Amino acid sequence: MYIGIDLGGTNIAAGLVDDNGNILKKRSTPTRAERSFEEIVKDMADSAESLIRDAGVERSEIKAVGVGSPGAIDHSNGVVINAGNLGWKDAPLKFELEKLTGISVSVENDANAAAYGEYVKHGGEIKDFIFITLGTGIGGGIIIDGKIYRGFNGAGAEVGHNTLIYGGDMCSCGKRGCWEVYGSVTGLINQTCDAIDKNPGSLMAKYRCERGVVDGRTAFDAAKAGDYAAKAVVKQYLEYVADGICSLVNIFEPEVLLIGGGISKEGEYLLAPIREYCEANYFCKTICQTRLGIAKLGNDAGIIGAALSAKI
Amino acid sequence: MYIGIDLGGTNIAAGLVDDNGNILKKRSTPTRAERSFEEIVKDMADSAESLIRDAGVERSEIKAVGVGSPGAIDHSNGVVINAGNLGWKDAPLKFELEKLTGISVSVENDANAAAYGEYVKHGGEIKDFIFITLGTGIGGGIIIDGKIYRGFNGAGAEVGHNTLIYGGDMCSCGKRGCWEVYGSVTGLINQTCDAIDKNPGSLMAKYRCERGVVDGRTAFDAAKAGDYAAKAVVKQYLEYVADGICSLVNIFEPEVLLIGGGISKEGEYLLAPIREYCEANYFCKTICQTRLGIAKLGNDAGIIGAALSAKI
Repeated sequence: MYIGIDLGGTNIAAGLVDDNGNILKKRSTPTRAERSFEEIVKDMADSAESLIRDAGVERSEIKAVGVGSPGAIDHSNGVVINAGNLGWKDAPLKFELEKLTGISVSVENDANAAAYGEYVKHGGEIKDFIFITLGTGIGGGIIIDGKIYRGFNGAGAEVGHNTLIYGGDMCSCGKRGCWEVYGSVTGLINQTCDAIDKNPGSLMAKYRCERGVVDGRTAFDAAKAGDYAAKAVVKQYLEYVADGICSLVNIFEPEVLLIGGGISKEGEYLLAPIREYCEANYFCKTICQTRLGIAKLGNDAGIIGAALSAKI
Repeated sequence: MYIGIDLGGTNIAAGLVDDNGNILKKRSTPTRAERSFEEIVKDMADSAESLIRDAGVERSEIKAVGVGSPGAIDHSNGVVINAGNLGWKDAPLKFELEKLTGISVSVENDANAAAYGEYVKHGGEIKDFIFITLGTGIGGGIIIDGKIYRGFNGAGAEVGHNTLIYGGDMCSCGKRGCWEVYGSVTGLINQTCDAIDKNPGSLMAKYRCERGVVDGRTAFDAAKAGDYAAKAVVKQYLEYVADGICSLVNIFEPEVLLIGGGISKEGEYLLAPIREYCEANYFCKTICQTRLGIAKLGNDAGIIGAALSAKI
């Protein structure tokens, strides 16, 4: 049995996970990221202790604690090199958490951990696998030969910062035109707001009034209800997503590429146009055998992946 | 000792290569790609026989023949799945060449083979390594954990077909805006021609008249001689190249990325602005430790890499 902790900027989500990646019990506590490193690590340790106690398992049954943390990670030493949203630099997470729990700790980048969770739950017999999450940004994880690919210094797999439009809109990373500027849910919301400004009579505008917010569902819901302006937004958005996927497949030709994040709940409505665009645009159209699909674990991917990555 | 064969659309370049990747003897014969598969393979076998005879080595000293072939390759079976410029589809290269030579044959994609050659000659102790060639297109090879990365079905590592400008100029692959449209030498020549049209008084126009041609050196030579229009061409071209490299480093963070192709002879004049752009634009600016450099083997990379990849 393992404990998986998905450390986010908002919540510390933790779970007791069996050897097959099933969550037996989980809990969540606010991160309150403005606090000190020590206070946050203390809460992570308390989460682990609570899970052990509440599940009524023996401490000795817990083989390891796996943490998925934002930022660039020195996996060998369990150090968070840099996690902007937590304000951490060279934070010795493994050392501190082992001191508090007395259990062996492994630290992985959160997107890598989620990718590994999806990978294992997808069957785990795939050689090369890519997982992308469409969210505030575009996160990603790469599994090569069954192992998490991290890059030389833990700074790899930042697939959201592959350029889509050279010289395009500014990304939060400081480079212009990154894929995540256009293909993330944040990008979709911006595109939806622009379309509402230009089409004040569209259903999207009505939904904004009724719901008091524009979110990743606004354009999708209006498009499904037949609104033309919304259909155009969705079509363009999915082409941005698809073009970035096409680039990744030209580079990796993984056996499987899964799309996750809240928006992936759109299922085939999201996937079919992406698949069509990709198949028409792959470099090796007749040869490429990458299977595109929707991720399965939802928000649990982080906990499960963190736990399972502590196993290897 | 190995024989390495770099099969190109123009020439079949072959070499006798020692275990350390040194070429002991080499020869070249025109491919005449319009000929049948059998005729071309016969010439490859003859090249190997000539090398053995001319070098006065025993057949038994040749451990294997490695071939770098264009196209998508089924490495396990030594089949060229699809090589457009040779007109080959599912061509059983390993089988035919083994039949003719009686020596074990290994077939690798040509860009992968060249990358592997550069990798081994760079020291071979690097874990993750990327090699790109700026030529007619942009070729690339990816070494992960010391092994050539091929993708699920031999269709990976097509880094030239990573999008740089979504919806941009049409690429020969059928997708718009691929990196190689802007960052290849073909792209540079197009950009130089455009600049000459707009600046008929520039040194570039003078060089075109004198040399009777616009090539990859035209803008570089004129820029070095102080021509402002040429400096602008070179600056923009190198930014296209750099942005594509930046994307690859955001995805892979390899330990080393080398740039090859004829234009890489420009050395630091090419590399310094690329390095500067990348360091300012990497996602993990303070963390990323990828070393950018110029490839060393020139045209021999294909022969050496093909030979050495037969070794593994």
